[in-house]
Amino acid sequence: MTTMNPVENLATLIRCPSVTPAEGGALAALEAMLVPLGFAVQRVVMSAPGTPDIENLYARIGTEGPHLMFAGHTDVVPVGDAAAWTHDPFAAEIADGQMYGRGAVDMKGGIACFVAAVARHIEKHGPPKGSVSFLITGDEEGPAVNGTIKLLEWAAARGERWDACLVGEPTNPDALGDMIKIGRRGSVSGALTVFGVQGHAAYPHLADNPVRAVIALADALMDPPFDAGTDDFQPSNLEVTTIDVGNPAVNVVPAKAQASFNIRFNDSWTADTVKAEIVRRLDGAAADQRLRPGRAPIRYELRWAERPSHVFLTRDDRLIASLSSAIEASIGRVPKLSTTGGTSDARFIKDYCPVVEFGLVGQTMHMVDERVAVADLETLTLIYETFLARWFANAGI
Amino acid sequence: MTTMNPVENLATLIRCPSVTPAEGGALAALEAMLVPLGFAVQRVVMSAPGTPDIENLYARIGTEGPHLMFAGHTDVVPVGDAAAWTHDPFAAEIADGQMYGRGAVDMKGGIACFVAAVARHIEKHGPPKGSVSFLITGDEEGPAVNGTIKLLEWAAARGERWDACLVGEPTNPDALGDMIKIGRRGSVSGALTVFGVQGHAAYPHLADNPVRAVIALADALMDPPFDAGTDDFQPSNLEVTTIDVGNPAVNVVPAKAQASFNIRFNDSWTADTVKAEIVRRLDGAAADQRLRPGRAPIRYELRWAERPSHVFLTRDDRLIASLSSAIEASIGRVPKLSTTGGTSDARFIKDYCPVVEFGLVGQTMHMVDERVAVADLETLTLIYETFLARWFANAGI
Repeated sequence: MTTMNPVENLATLIRCPSVTPAEGGALAALEAMLVPLGFAVQRVVMSAPGTPDIENLYARIGTEGPHLMFAGHTDVVPVGDAAAWTHDPFAAEIADGQMYGRGAVDMKGGIACFVAAVARHIEKHGPPKGSVSFLITGDEEGPAVNGTIKLLEWAAARGERWDACLVGEPTNPDALGDMIKIGRRGSVSGALTVFGVQGHAAYPHLADNPVRAVIALADALMDPPFDAGTDDFQPSNLEVTTIDVGNPAVNVVPAKAQASFNIRFNDSWTADTVKAEIVRRLDGAAADQRLRPGRAPIRYELRWAERPSHVFLTRDDRLIASLSSAIEASIGRVPKLSTTGGTSDARFIKDYCPVVEFGLVGQTMHMVDERVAVADLETLTLIYETFLARWFANAGI
Repeated sequence: MTTMNPVENLATLIRCPSVTPAEGGALAALEAMLVPLGFAVQRVVMSAPGTPDIENLYARIGTEGPHLMFAGHTDVVPVGDAAAWTHDPFAAEIADGQMYGRGAVDMKGGIACFVAAVARHIEKHGPPKGSVSFLITGDEEGPAVNGTIKLLEWAAARGERWDACLVGEPTNPDALGDMIKIGRRGSVSGALTVFGVQGHAAYPHLADNPVRAVIALADALMDPPFDAGTDDFQPSNLEVTTIDVGNPAVNVVPAKAQASFNIRFNDSWTADTVKAEIVRRLDGAAADQRLRPGRAPIRYELRWAERPSHVFLTRDDRLIASLSSAIEASIGRVPKLSTTGGTSDARFIKDYCPVVEFGLVGQTMHMVDERVAVADLETLTLIYETFLARWFANAGI
């Protein structure tokens, strides 16, 4: 089976220009790899008002437990400055031991390796003693409305249950085997509108400058730190990501100011408690008479962004140990168990089964000349294949 | 002479729709009032690239010193919400003792009264023993590029010299006689661009949030206060009037932030020393390691707005005493000598001769239903006429 070769698998996938929301032939190519291996493949289109229809794929081999899911996405971010690429981003050219192409590491490469690992496993051992499934979306880099979250609901409604999940995102900062992600911080975003009183800059006592007010609120949001970190997580961190007043007249005190913020919070908080803390800080600063002697409290409106991402930490020792030992056995490196970084679709999967993330080296993801060392593709395939064997063995089958 | 009646003079001027930059017939009407009184009237058009041509007027009676200038403008701000006016803003209708119209107090009313005062002075005493001139622009409410500043240069180049100037702006907050303005704070504006490092909100240590940086710089600009005020002036005050980042993505730390500010400074500063203090504050905050432990100094660019307004204080006792005593003699009220408020064309005139400002009550200036009490027109004319007599008497003629 040619699908045992991850380099060929990846070349096939890169040549499908599947920039979100386009399927670009990528899921069809994946289907063509999985069907000969014995997978039952279902292509599922998800829709929502105001967003493009999205193609997704769910494939399973086996009918019994234990059931391991491999999750990921075939969609890719745009190429950016196409002229700056040294190789066609959709040609999968190899130069100096690197395969170039959009999605090479994020994350067509991870899919290509897992397909090869499963193919080799079946070649050596026959169909897995249990089940393996692929849950692959075309909407991870986009709004993520018609992707993993809906595909999980769709599959669960059809009776699918999973015992563990591996997400093939590029988790390694520098070298293959550096890092398994076993959890992610939560994320909450909000937008503030701060009201002042417009007036002439020469008569500031008759006006109430909302720039001063928004600075006071932004300061209170960012400092002091929310916590010092936990055993498993970095400190929570809030960034005010924009302040906008839009006042073109330098001799006028404006009427209002707007700001947006995002907090990545660890497992000492929930989305609800971190929201409550944010409101406490805002109200405290709004009423702080040291900041506004003799003034009424700052008037502000707070609007939360939809759908917070909840913090999670996977404590499935069997899953983590199978993957960690597979990495150590394959390349002699003990991976760091990390909860750093942004959110991923793992935040949706964690509601269905324990989930960890491990894939390629992420250095060139989303960049011009995204590329992967061909040697890494072979190594990751070996790790995935070893993991498959160990997970099913550890699961007691 | 009908020009002895300030109410008729003002009605004539209000009926000229001289919204900046339109002359609207206002200067022609003023010329028609002044020529019969014996004034030599010159109409002067000023031009500059990118701005509309502006008509201005300079009129003088007498050839000898002492020479008193009356300065002002016939242009008016737009009517705003025309439907909200209870009387046609260009009809000069009188109702309940009030004359309605755009420019009624700012400052066609002041011009109407000074014309009437001069006419009465000539009627009683003959031509002034010395000279009186009108320096009237059509570009005070607009860019003020082709107005008073150029008209002064033009007149000075022709040998005109003045001993004192009265600007007829509406200086009284509540009632006629409240306030003479004997100086103004200076004004300096600037714009900051603050540079950070763009990145993902989940990896703030890899980014450098310019929102934090711009807040630190804005804080340093606004606090602590620049001074506690002086004998003659309010405390200097700086307002950051806008902060703009324009980052639509709440999960992205932006690359830069912009802010603008304006300071109104008193006579403990010059434009140069206040600029130096601003730079000192910015550099101090930029390098403050308490704000950015382990970080390089904040990178920022500072661009000063063109043409600062210099602070000035008139110390001509004869001028101030003539006006102040004229007010007290006319209405029994001792005016406050003030340096509050925004800049005016007096900031240009002060380079040529001592200048004070006194006119009508400013409450309705720039508003819908701008209006003046007819009684105030009579009273201001009396004050101006008394001032004329006293100033020439005090000048020793």
